[in-house]
Amino acid sequence: MQRILSTTLPDYVEKPVRLAGWIHRRRLLKSVAFLILRDAAGLAQVVVTDPAVRAQLERLPEETVVAVTGIATAQPAAPGGVEVTGPTITPLTDPAALVPFDLYRPDLRANLPTILDHAPVALRHPKLAATHRIAAAAVAGFRDTLTSMGFVEIHTPKIVGTATESGANVFALDYFGRRAYLAQSPQLYKQIMVGAFERVFEVGPVFRAEPSDTARHLAAYTSLDAELGFVDDHRDVIAACHATVAGMLAAVGATAGPALELLDVRLPTLPAEPVIVHFADALAMISAATGRDVTGEPDLAPEHERWLGEWALREHGSDFVFVEGYPTRHRAFYTHPDPGRPGYSRAIDLIFRGVELVSGGQRLHRYGDYVQALAERGETDLTPYAGYLDAMRYGMPPHGGFAFGLERFVARLLGVPNIRQVTLFPRDLHRLAP
Amino acid sequence: MQRILSTTLPDYVEKPVRLAGWIHRRRLLKSVAFLILRDAAGLAQVVVTDPAVRAQLERLPEETVVAVTGIATAQPAAPGGVEVTGPTITPLTDPAALVPFDLYRPDLRANLPTILDHAPVALRHPKLAATHRIAAAAVAGFRDTLTSMGFVEIHTPKIVGTATESGANVFALDYFGRRAYLAQSPQLYKQIMVGAFERVFEVGPVFRAEPSDTARHLAAYTSLDAELGFVDDHRDVIAACHATVAGMLAAVGATAGPALELLDVRLPTLPAEPVIVHFADALAMISAATGRDVTGEPDLAPEHERWLGEWALREHGSDFVFVEGYPTRHRAFYTHPDPGRPGYSRAIDLIFRGVELVSGGQRLHRYGDYVQALAERGETDLTPYAGYLDAMRYGMPPHGGFAFGLERFVARLLGVPNIRQVTLFPRDLHRLAP
Repeated sequence: MQRILSTTLPDYVEKPVRLAGWIHRRRLLKSVAFLILRDAAGLAQVVVTDPAVRAQLERLPEETVVAVTGIATAQPAAPGGVEVTGPTITPLTDPAALVPFDLYRPDLRANLPTILDHAPVALRHPKLAATHRIAAAAVAGFRDTLTSMGFVEIHTPKIVGTATESGANVFALDYFGRRAYLAQSPQLYKQIMVGAFERVFEVGPVFRAEPSDTARHLAAYTSLDAELGFVDDHRDVIAACHATVAGMLAAVGATAGPALELLDVRLPTLPAEPVIVHFADALAMISAATGRDVTGEPDLAPEHERWLGEWALREHGSDFVFVEGYPTRHRAFYTHPDPGRPGYSRAIDLIFRGVELVSGGQRLHRYGDYVQALAERGETDLTPYAGYLDAMRYGMPPHGGFAFGLERFVARLLGVPNIRQVTLFPRDLHRLAP
Repeated sequence: MQRILSTTLPDYVEKPVRLAGWIHRRRLLKSVAFLILRDAAGLAQVVVTDPAVRAQLERLPEETVVAVTGIATAQPAAPGGVEVTGPTITPLTDPAALVPFDLYRPDLRANLPTILDHAPVALRHPKLAATHRIAAAAVAGFRDTLTSMGFVEIHTPKIVGTATESGANVFALDYFGRRAYLAQSPQLYKQIMVGAFERVFEVGPVFRAEPSDTARHLAAYTSLDAELGFVDDHRDVIAACHATVAGMLAAVGATAGPALELLDVRLPTLPAEPVIVHFADALAMISAATGRDVTGEPDLAPEHERWLGEWALREHGSDFVFVEGYPTRHRAFYTHPDPGRPGYSRAIDLIFRGVELVSGGQRLHRYGDYVQALAERGETDLTPYAGYLDAMRYGMPPHGGFAFGLERFVARLLGVPNIRQVTLFPRDLHRLAP
C-alpha cells in the first residue's frame, strides 16, 4: 500500500491507510495505548487496543522508525480530526536509543549546549524543524525576487589567495603548500560580476574567524548577497533591498504558514515605501529625544539602532528602517562618498526591529577612485586587488549592493536571542562538531 | 529619461530612448560610425553621423561604460531590426583600459590560461556569460523541482572537525588554534537531516585537495546534493534523480533560451522513463560487444561509460543511463548492499553522454550496520562519526540520495572539454586567483 503523509489522513476516512514515521510519543494507558507518529508533514494519532500490538509498542522506544497500517477513523479529539485504528506496526529500524530530551514536549527543555551537542536528534523537534523551514522559505523568496528583477545567480570562490577585505579575522589554510584564506564575503567577486551580468546574487557560506563569543556572531554563516549596476545612487540599492525583503516575507507567509503558526510568529510590517533616514538626521533625532548629544558619533551604537527601530514602528508603522549616509571613513574602502555632503557616504544599513540586518550602499566604480581610497587607508601595494581592480579598469558602471546573514534574519524574524538557535550546526570559537 | 534594455528597442520605434552599457565595438567608417552597445540583454546598434559625437567616440575605447540617448529607428540590418540614430553619448566611467582580447568577436580568441587570468573581463564575452546563465537556470531547476517534491533546503557546515569521508585529499585549516578541514561533501549532514525533514537538498561549495591536474577536476566546485527518506530501495533514488534532471533541463529550456541559441546547444534527450542497467549486465553487454571479457572488473572504466552512453542513445534514444548495483566494496562505507545479490550494492551512477555525472544510491540506515561497515574498512574508532552515528542510533528511516557537480553538468550539457571553461573563477592545483 502506498504510504500517505499524516496531514492527508482526513482524505481517507473509513479507508485503509499506510503511514510511516517516527514514534513521537507513546501513551500506554490501562485499557488503550496511543502511538503518536511524526512524519515530515505533522503528527498522527494511532490507537492500539490489540494486546499483541500493545506489547510490541512497549518494546519500541520513542524515535524508532515504523510503518503503520490501519483504518483512518474520524475522531474529533485527534490531530486533524482523524486517527488510525486497528493498526499493524512494522519497525523499519532497530529500536531507537534513549534520546537525551523529550522530543514530544511542546518545547525542547534542554539548555543550548545540550541541544547543539545533540543537534542530529534535537533538530527533529517540530519547533526546531519549523525554524529551518522558515529559513528555507526566506532564501527561496530572496532568490525568486531577485531572479524576477533580472538578477543572475553566481557561485564565487570560497578559497582566496589574499585576505583583502579586512586583513584580520580570516581563516588561513594550506592550499597545495601555499597559504590561502577562506572568503569573508563574496563582495569583490559580486562587484566584478556586475561587469558581466549587471545584476547578480549569491547565496553561500562566508567565514569569519571571530574571536568573540557572542549571541550574534558565528565563524561561518550563510550570506545573502546582491549587487546591481547602472544605479543612480544608493537609493536604487535601497529600492532593490526593500523589494527583496518584501519578497522574502511574502514567501515565508505563503509557503511556511504551518511553521509560523507552530512558532506563533507574527510577520513584521514592511510598508510599500521604505522608511529612510539619513545618518546625521538619525543622530540629531536621537540627541533631541534623549537629551544627550550624540551628533558627533561616527557610527550608530546598538542603543541608537534600538531607538530608530522604535521610532520607525511608532512614526511609520514599519519594523524596518533604512539608514543612509554613514560617515565614509568608517565604511569599507569601496564605499562611494556622497558628492553633495563631504564626510558622508552613500552607504546604507537596514535596521530590522532595532538591530542592524543588512549592510550595503553604492560602491566606487572608477579605477582612479579605488587607487586613491586604498592609498588613504595605507594600502599602496595593489597586487592583492589585481583582478578586482581590473574589472574597474576595463569599465564598470556605477553600482551598489547589499548583504546580510540568513541566520540573523531568521533569528530576528522569530525573536530568538541567540543565532545558534537558528543555525543547523553552528561553528564558533568553541564549537566544531557535530 | 528611464533607461531601457537593448532588446526592448523595437517597442520604441520613432521615439526617444536612453540606453546604457558597454562599448562592445566601434566601427569607424569614412562617412559614418557605428557604436555597438552591449547591456545585460544583448546588443544595440547606434549610428553616429555628427562629427563631434564621432570625435568623442574615437576617444572612448571598447568596454568604456556609456549612456546613449537618441531616437529608436527601424533598420532591418540592425540587431532586432531597430537602431539608435542621432545619439548623444555620456561616458559613465573613465575610458576603459585596453582589453587583452577582442570581446566583440563571436568567439573569444585566447588560450584558456589567458582567459582565466583575465576572467573579470573575459566573463563579459556574450558566450561566456551565456554559459553561466545556463548554469543559473539549471540550479534554479534543481531547487524548484526538489522543492515541488517536498524537499527542504539546508545549509550544512563547510568547516568540519574530522576528515571522515575519505581521509585523503582534504584541505586543512587552523581553526582558532585547532586543526579543522574543509568539507568534501555534505554527505553525512544531509543524511542526518533526513531525520528532521525526510527530504533535503543543498547547493553549496565542496572542497577537494585534488593533486591531479586534469580537465575534469577542480579543488572547489558547486555540489548539488539531495537525500530522501522512506525509500523502498535505490530505485526510489533513481526516480527522484531522474525527475530532478528532467526539471533542470526543462528550466534551462524555459529560461535560458537565448543563451542556448547563442551557444548553439541542443538540449539532451531524457525519456519519460529512466534507462536503467545493472552493473553486471553492463559489463556483460560490453564484453559481448567488444569481444573482450571485462565481467570481472570492479568498476566502470571511462571507455565502458562511453560505450554505455552510446548504447543508451542507440537502443533507447536517451542521453542518460542509470547504472545500478556497483560492487559494494568499491563504494563508500555508507553504501547499502543489495540483500538479494551478495557483493553488489544499491549504489547508482548516472551517465550523461558517456561520462559519469551523478553518484548516489541507498545508504545504510541501521546503527549496527554502520559499525560493521566501518570495522570492515578498518575503522574501529567511531569518535569522528559520533554525530552522524547518533542520527542512526536514534532512528533513521531507509534512505538514499544523490550528488553531482554543477560545473560537470554544465560542461557536459555544452559539450565543453575543460571544466574550467564553465567555472567563474576556478580553483585548482595551480590557480588561486583571480
